[in-house]
Amino acid sequence: MPRSRPYRHDGAGPEPGQASAGTGVSLNGQASAASSPLGLHRVLEPAGVLPQAAWRLEARAAIWPDEVRVAVTRLNLDAASFRQLREAHDGNPDKIRASVLDIIRTRGKMQNPVTGSGGMLTGTVAEVGPESSLGLAVGDKIATLVSLSLTPLVITDGLASWDGKSEQVPCEGHAILFGRSIAAKLPDDLPAELALSVMDVCGAPALTHRVVAGCQARSSQAPGPVVAIIGAAGKSGSLSAAAARQAGAERIIGVVPHEAEAQLLRDAGGAARGEPGLVDEIVIADARNPVVVSRAIENAGGPADVTVVCVDVPGCEGGAILATAQGGTVIFFSMATSFTAAALGAEGVAADVTMLVGNGYVPGHAQLALGLIRAQPAVRGLFQRRIDEHSSADQSARNQTAHNNTAPEHGAPNHGE
Amino acid sequence: MPRSRPYRHDGAGPEPGQASAGTGVSLNGQASAASSPLGLHRVLEPAGVLPQAAWRLEARAAIWPDEVRVAVTRLNLDAASFRQLREAHDGNPDKIRASVLDIIRTRGKMQNPVTGSGGMLTGTVAEVGPESSLGLAVGDKIATLVSLSLTPLVITDGLASWDGKSEQVPCEGHAILFGRSIAAKLPDDLPAELALSVMDVCGAPALTHRVVAGCQARSSQAPGPVVAIIGAAGKSGSLSAAAARQAGAERIIGVVPHEAEAQLLRDAGGAARGEPGLVDEIVIADARNPVVVSRAIENAGGPADVTVVCVDVPGCEGGAILATAQGGTVIFFSMATSFTAAALGAEGVAADVTMLVGNGYVPGHAQLALGLIRAQPAVRGLFQRRIDEHSSADQSARNQTAHNNTAPEHGAPNHGE
Repeated sequence: MPRSRPYRHDGAGPEPGQASAGTGVSLNGQASAASSPLGLHRVLEPAGVLPQAAWRLEARAAIWPDEVRVAVTRLNLDAASFRQLREAHDGNPDKIRASVLDIIRTRGKMQNPVTGSGGMLTGTVAEVGPESSLGLAVGDKIATLVSLSLTPLVITDGLASWDGKSEQVPCEGHAILFGRSIAAKLPDDLPAELALSVMDVCGAPALTHRVVAGCQARSSQAPGPVVAIIGAAGKSGSLSAAAARQAGAERIIGVVPHEAEAQLLRDAGGAARGEPGLVDEIVIADARNPVVVSRAIENAGGPADVTVVCVDVPGCEGGAILATAQGGTVIFFSMATSFTAAALGAEGVAADVTMLVGNGYVPGHAQLALGLIRAQPAVRGLFQRRIDEHSSADQSARNQTAHNNTAPEHGAPNHGE
Repeated sequence: MPRSRPYRHDGAGPEPGQASAGTGVSLNGQASAASSPLGLHRVLEPAGVLPQAAWRLEARAAIWPDEVRVAVTRLNLDAASFRQLREAHDGNPDKIRASVLDIIRTRGKMQNPVTGSGGMLTGTVAEVGPESSLGLAVGDKIATLVSLSLTPLVITDGLASWDGKSEQVPCEGHAILFGRSIAAKLPDDLPAELALSVMDVCGAPALTHRVVAGCQARSSQAPGPVVAIIGAAGKSGSLSAAAARQAGAERIIGVVPHEAEAQLLRDAGGAARGEPGLVDEIVIADARNPVVVSRAIENAGGPADVTVVCVDVPGCEGGAILATAQGGTVIFFSMATSFTAAALGAEGVAADVTMLVGNGYVPGHAQLALGLIRAQPAVRGLFQRRIDEHSSADQSARNQTAHNNTAPEHGAPNHGE
């Protein structure tokens, strides 16, 4: 017989995992209660919510036993957040700088109150609590892979080294990682900017790898699955293509919106160097038109057993669903995905497809993505071009985003924000 | 080396699956081109889109070889659509009736232009094309399980039998099912209203069954998985609980928002009749508070290997993710689910969980759900109470929806709309 277990959150419980105004942080600055791996003990207001939902966090330097303190060297603001700040302050660097400082001072974290987004940071591990399970050591150079929107942060240099003109914010200060945070060591053998760019979207290749490898296991007789990547010339798309190849995809179909993107994929192909291409077929089609894109993928050797949506434009759900074989899987990485469009779209065409919300966290995701970059010159070359493009033509790329569907992603695919 | 395959939709191709203004339907009323299993040949404008996205469909009675014509006996308007119509016309039955007639006449389908939603219909199969693969025969009494928003429809009685006061619309006319539509025969042994109510949410138990059975197979040594159902006393929730039981769940935790819902579950338990309960543990908690609901589920025997979200209130993503074990699965059936909240929520707490968009279509879903109703008196009893409540206190239930999180679902869970 069922037993009823009324449960109300009254703040009285002392166990980890529960926070309240009365526990967690005492006013004399001592860690007075057990910490929570989720950081609930750092939530000041409102009490009892997760750090991301909190208005204000406790960001002091003293750590709980399962925490890690990082000496921050750089913030990488979420593109949506920086855009909002720039527009709100007419591009005035002093005002933008003052605004970011004010947010961090007031909230104890860099979470833009308008966009709700944060970004990521890099720094050096300064102190590791005895109960931390993140595997970090003092002196490690790291990047955080959880959002700044939930990371306790203090800035100590007034952002004096930042020009206020880009998302890259050199700075001094400290940040806190919780017991269950995600951080990755920066590799010695890759430029920092390339490594960060890869880590920013590393959830997509990791989940693609898992799903494609799972398809393999299901039918050991058959050749590997057909994989379609919508937005294959973008950062998350190209890494996902590389991951699909490594996981045993039989055929990889890359969908791009126009010839320039197709050329990027061809250039990355490495045929001149005798290496395998990033994709086996390049299809130029508008991913927002279900009929067009599904026909195009079919003509290129589809339907796909696995379809990966990596473009940040709305309206790609129907095409991805129609392009996928019955019994197949669609992985939605685009943050422009509409839950209802996906759910209704599949039902409307009687599509028995598994639809995954692209979780930006898969254990080992950063190492897998960095390994792909090291092993596959094609994807590394494409990434480098995206980075060069972005720094030389930041504004023009941004303007383009509204009009095509594989312009450089802005923060989205690993849901860095 | 990748080959580029530019593909542009120019309407020139004669193949099935492609529609244009020039093919599909000719003006003399003859089927002049091959039909598409998706119904593209019935799209009048704009050309080339899927029937759901179309402004206007061709709804004439003559069928293509893979189609089925149904003599309609009743429309079951989507609740959101009916609410909008009622409010727009101040509850005036004549105006509501005229408005529905006008929509159907103009669009060739019952898709509310404001809400975009439709509903479902019941009727009798009148003609089956020689190439139809739906398995229907003339005379079968059926319900459609794809939305009215993509179903060609003609009304011939002016809706004279409808009082304009509820979503239930007795009527005469015809509707068309495409090659790839979904329809289910109405069972002889169950009241029509009960059967329709079950079919309306049958996607949820079918997918829950599949996922829970899959968990079983993964670890044949271990006992079955722990399943948490958020909104367990609702229609889709109670059916999902019954499906989880049938699929081998070891322990089922039902989450409800308050004591009245808990009592419904207890009453359905059937303990007095010596039958197993619908759930093993009843938890009263606010599903919108991640900390509270995850702690409550943990205390009741969690974390869950599979968590099923069946409540139509926003903000339940974080709690469902936190309540799920690493490596587990969350199935989002609520149409109030936010894609970004799910994606960011999982990443923010380093949750390695598989997150599924609840696809309303799984082959055999209607039969599985009707089978559960027949086999489990507990869930049948609960369903009947929901139906009785709904007809006796429609308005009061609707008002309640905004304030609690398991009030009768309105159309949502199988994405009937």
